Amino acid sequence: MRGRFITLEGVEGTGKSTHLEFVAQFLRARGKKALCTREPGGTPLGERVREILLANDLQQMDAVTELLLMFAARMEHVKKVIEPALQAGTWVISDRFYDASYAYQGFGRGVDQKRIAILHKNTIGDLEPDLTFLLDVSLEVSRQRVEDRGDQDRFEKENSEFYTNVRNGYLQLAEQHRRIRIIDANQTIQVVQSMLKHELEQLV
Amino acid sequence: MRGRFITLEGVEGTGKSTHLEFVAQFLRARGKKALCTREPGGTPLGERVREILLANDLQQMDAVTELLLMFAARMEHVKKVIEPALQAGTWVISDRFYDASYAYQGFGRGVDQKRIAILHKNTIGDLEPDLTFLLDVSLEVSRQRVEDRGDQDRFEKENSEFYTNVRNGYLQLAEQHRRIRIIDANQTIQVVQSMLKHELEQLV
Repeated sequence: MRGRFITLEGVEGTGKSTHLEFVAQFLRARGKKALCTREPGGTPLGERVREILLANDLQQMDAVTELLLMFAARMEHVKKVIEPALQAGTWVISDRFYDASYAYQGFGRGVDQKRIAILHKNTIGDLEPDLTFLLDVSLEVSRQRVEDRGDQDRFEKENSEFYTNVRNGYLQLAEQHRRIRIIDANQTIQVVQSMLKHELEQLV
Repeated sequence: MRGRFITLEGVEGTGKSTHLEFVAQFLRARGKKALCTREPGGTPLGERVREILLANDLQQMDAVTELLLMFAARMEHVKKVIEPALQAGTWVISDRFYDASYAYQGFGRGVDQKRIAILHKNTIGDLEPDLTFLLDVSLEVSRQRVEDRGDQDRFEKENSEFYTNVRNGYLQLAEQHRRIRIIDANQTIQVVQSMLKHELEQLV
C-alpha cells in the first residue's frame, strides 16, 4: 500500500524540526515506516541548491530565479526521494513542500500566484500532501527564536514586513486547502504535540 | 538606442568561444559596445548553478531538474546582465541561450517541447535574440575536439546518441526560426568567420 505524505509548513522559528521528529515517532509507534526529509534539500543536488538559496552574498537574487531554484530542488526531491518512498509504502514527512513557494516567493516576494501554479503543475504535476500542518506563531515569537539561534541565512535576514506577508499568505493558503491544518505553535510543545497527535490519529 | 542580442549555439567542440570573441571584435570595430557572456552562468549565482549542472557526481540528475536549473541561471542572467546591457545600448553576445534548452533538455533528454515552452514563456517571457548563429559540426569533429581537451564534464560525457539528437534538434530549431543561421563549422576558422561577418554586416 502506498505511503501517505505529510508536510510541515510555517515561517522560521515555529519548531518544525522538533515536531517533524515527533510526527515520525508517532507513526513508527503505529507500525509505519516513516522518512523525514526537508526542502529546499532532501537530495545531494537539493542540498547544493539549498546552499545557493541561503547564501548571504546572493542577497539580491531575482524572485523568479529563487522560485526556479526551489522547484529544481523540489523536482529532484520528488523524483529521487518522495515518490519512490511513497510507492514503497513508506510515509514521508517533509519540512516544507510546495506551499512554501506560494507563501515565500508568492506572498513574500510578490511573484504572481498564477505564475507559481503554472510552474508547479508543469513540473511536479499532481503530487499533493495528504496532510499539512501549518505551524503558526506570532511574528514576535518567530523573530525572537531566529535571533536566539545566532547566524542568520538569506531568508532569516528578511524584515518583519516580509515575514508578515509570508505568515498571512500561509493563513490564506490554509483557507483554500482542506488538507492544511493550522496549529497554534505559540503554545507549549506538549499542547502542540497533543494537537498533532489528534490530527494524525484520524489519518492513520 | 537599445542594443541587439546575438547568441551562439551548437554542441560541444564547435569553436563557440573563439567565434564569440570574433563577433565582439567585429562589433567593437564598428563602434558598438559589446558584452560577451555565457550560459549556464553569466552571473555569480549562475556560475554556482553551472557547477551543479556540470558536476560529474550528479550524473543521474532528473531531466526536468536540469531544465529548471538552466532556467534559474537564465532568469538571473536576463534580469541582471542581458536586459540592463541591452537597455543601456550595449550589444550582448551570449554563448548559448534558451535554444540550448530545447536542444539539450528537449531533443537530447526527451523533455516535451511544449513543457519547455511553457516554462520559457512563464519565466523569461518575450526576450528573443535578434540573431542566432548555429555552429554546426559533424559528430566526429565534435567528439574529437572534446576528447582533445581532456577532462570532461557531465554533458561532455554523454554518448553519441545524445549528441546526435541534440545536433538534429538544433537543425530542426533552425528550420522553425528565421533568426537562426546555420554556419558550417567543419570549415576553417577563416571561412567560418567570413560567414559570420557576412551575417553581421546585415545586422549592423
